[in-house]
Amino acid sequence: MASDKLRIACTVREAREAIAAARAANQRIGLIPTMGYLHDGHVSLIDLCKNHADYLVVSVFVNPTQFSPHEDLSRYPRDFERDRHLIEAQGAHLLFAPTTKEIYPEDSQIRYEIRVLADHLCGPKRPGHFEGVLLVVSKLFHIIQPDVAVFGQKDLQQLLIIQRMITDLNFPIQLIAGPTIREPNGLAMSSRNSYLTTGERRESATIYRALQEARQLIESGERSASIVIEALMKRISKVQGSRMDYIGIVDLARLQPVEQIQGRIAIALAVYIGQTRLIDNMILEVNHGKVQEIPAFH
Amino acid sequence: MASDKLRIACTVREAREAIAAARAANQRIGLIPTMGYLHDGHVSLIDLCKNHADYLVVSVFVNPTQFSPHEDLSRYPRDFERDRHLIEAQGAHLLFAPTTKEIYPEDSQIRYEIRVLADHLCGPKRPGHFEGVLLVVSKLFHIIQPDVAVFGQKDLQQLLIIQRMITDLNFPIQLIAGPTIREPNGLAMSSRNSYLTTGERRESATIYRALQEARQLIESGERSASIVIEALMKRISKVQGSRMDYIGIVDLARLQPVEQIQGRIAIALAVYIGQTRLIDNMILEVNHGKVQEIPAFH
Repeated sequence: MASDKLRIACTVREAREAIAAARAANQRIGLIPTMGYLHDGHVSLIDLCKNHADYLVVSVFVNPTQFSPHEDLSRYPRDFERDRHLIEAQGAHLLFAPTTKEIYPEDSQIRYEIRVLADHLCGPKRPGHFEGVLLVVSKLFHIIQPDVAVFGQKDLQQLLIIQRMITDLNFPIQLIAGPTIREPNGLAMSSRNSYLTTGERRESATIYRALQEARQLIESGERSASIVIEALMKRISKVQGSRMDYIGIVDLARLQPVEQIQGRIAIALAVYIGQTRLIDNMILEVNHGKVQEIPAFH
Repeated sequence: MASDKLRIACTVREAREAIAAARAANQRIGLIPTMGYLHDGHVSLIDLCKNHADYLVVSVFVNPTQFSPHEDLSRYPRDFERDRHLIEAQGAHLLFAPTTKEIYPEDSQIRYEIRVLADHLCGPKRPGHFEGVLLVVSKLFHIIQPDVAVFGQKDLQQLLIIQRMITDLNFPIQLIAGPTIREPNGLAMSSRNSYLTTGERRESATIYRALQEARQLIESGERSASIVIEALMKRISKVQGSRMDYIGIVDLARLQPVEQIQGRIAIALAVYIGQTRLIDNMILEVNHGKVQEIPAFH
């Protein structure tokens, strides 16, 4: 797919004008929402979107409503020029990079409330986070009106909550999940990895290794979630400077903790390595003796 | 505007298919959401919509999520055949009449939360009501994807909350407000008027008369909200079998109570006449000596 020169829209009006032409030409619109500081994970999502859409819109917006007051909004990494080059090189058609004022001219009086899916994992650890994600994602959906939107499976709880919003509110949008892209040492790619020191980055490799060992434990026949969680905690506690935020084994339909590992489950965790909070997960389909990893959820 | 025979869609899929053809023909889509049991107020909204859209969609759906458990969901008046004839006679193109199961195949895990605008008037009297309204209206907006949606000013707080949702969430939809249509005796038209006995209906005329007298009081120079409210309460308390639910004089931007009547304000009230809860309102623009009624808010 050849791309014309990348167009940049900083306002809602500019974005809508740019997309109107593509829509009039009956092109399928694809949206890849990001907070910028792109890495190979984002690049893979843009690439994936090409299979499902003709006109690719990448948004770059660090959304303040999904950060708690004590979180890293102000120091979240930003590099617009680098992002622009990457997005252009990927053949995207429109970069939507609004200011905070453009997205939130006033405090939103309308907010979301999430039942069930936000009860565990990151939900209680980051109060208001997913509600803020839905706020900005629904705004982006209404601004861009994509036919397809692509999100990464690394943010599994976010992915499932957005899928649920699409279903519950009848958004006419198909959600596509992209598999987690990893560093050579297994660390899940994340813009926040830039916070890590060289030593911390090396230590962080243990997170994915521990997830793989948990899978092996399940493959060997273990079905008790608490035993698998204990093994994971023990393994990760040995990482220098680490502090566990949570580990959960949950069913994939409702993200509720399970005791017996059976059917489609996710092992999901958040760990602080030094000051940096990292998340990762693995989805398994467990049917009697058969254990299968699911790299991209459908 | 000549209309082909009215099409009826009972599922989301049928509605989207019907509308896709209109959209492909570059027609402007207009939506008039109703809970059915249509009266001249609804008819006027369909009529108003013709000035703004080419393809008119009327939805008829008694939305359970906007009723509290103790409210009148089960006895809410219904007459589908009469509605269908009225909608066809008005020249609408599509009647969307889904079942409850079609709109809510499961409990919605995604809900709305409303700040500021739902703090007063009906908000505290009907907990969850406006959140349920936003749930169904946002679903209808995503199903029909109208360019224009028309709501009546009789439900003023609903109108302003929906306008705020459109603005805060960037819905690509223009909201049009239709003026309140009244019975010859001044009673605001409402499907719930069918609950009234002949005697109650006669008594109910006092509500609008009291609002007019309040306007006259303001025209004569009174600027104290509490004095105007007291006069209104006194007047309505004389209605046989009446019980005041609330009276408020609020600014139109945020629906917060004002003490001094100045600028754009609404006098809004809810009164029980027997078992039936009736609402009404009047919007005034008060600038120094000048008092002007605003029949349809923009």
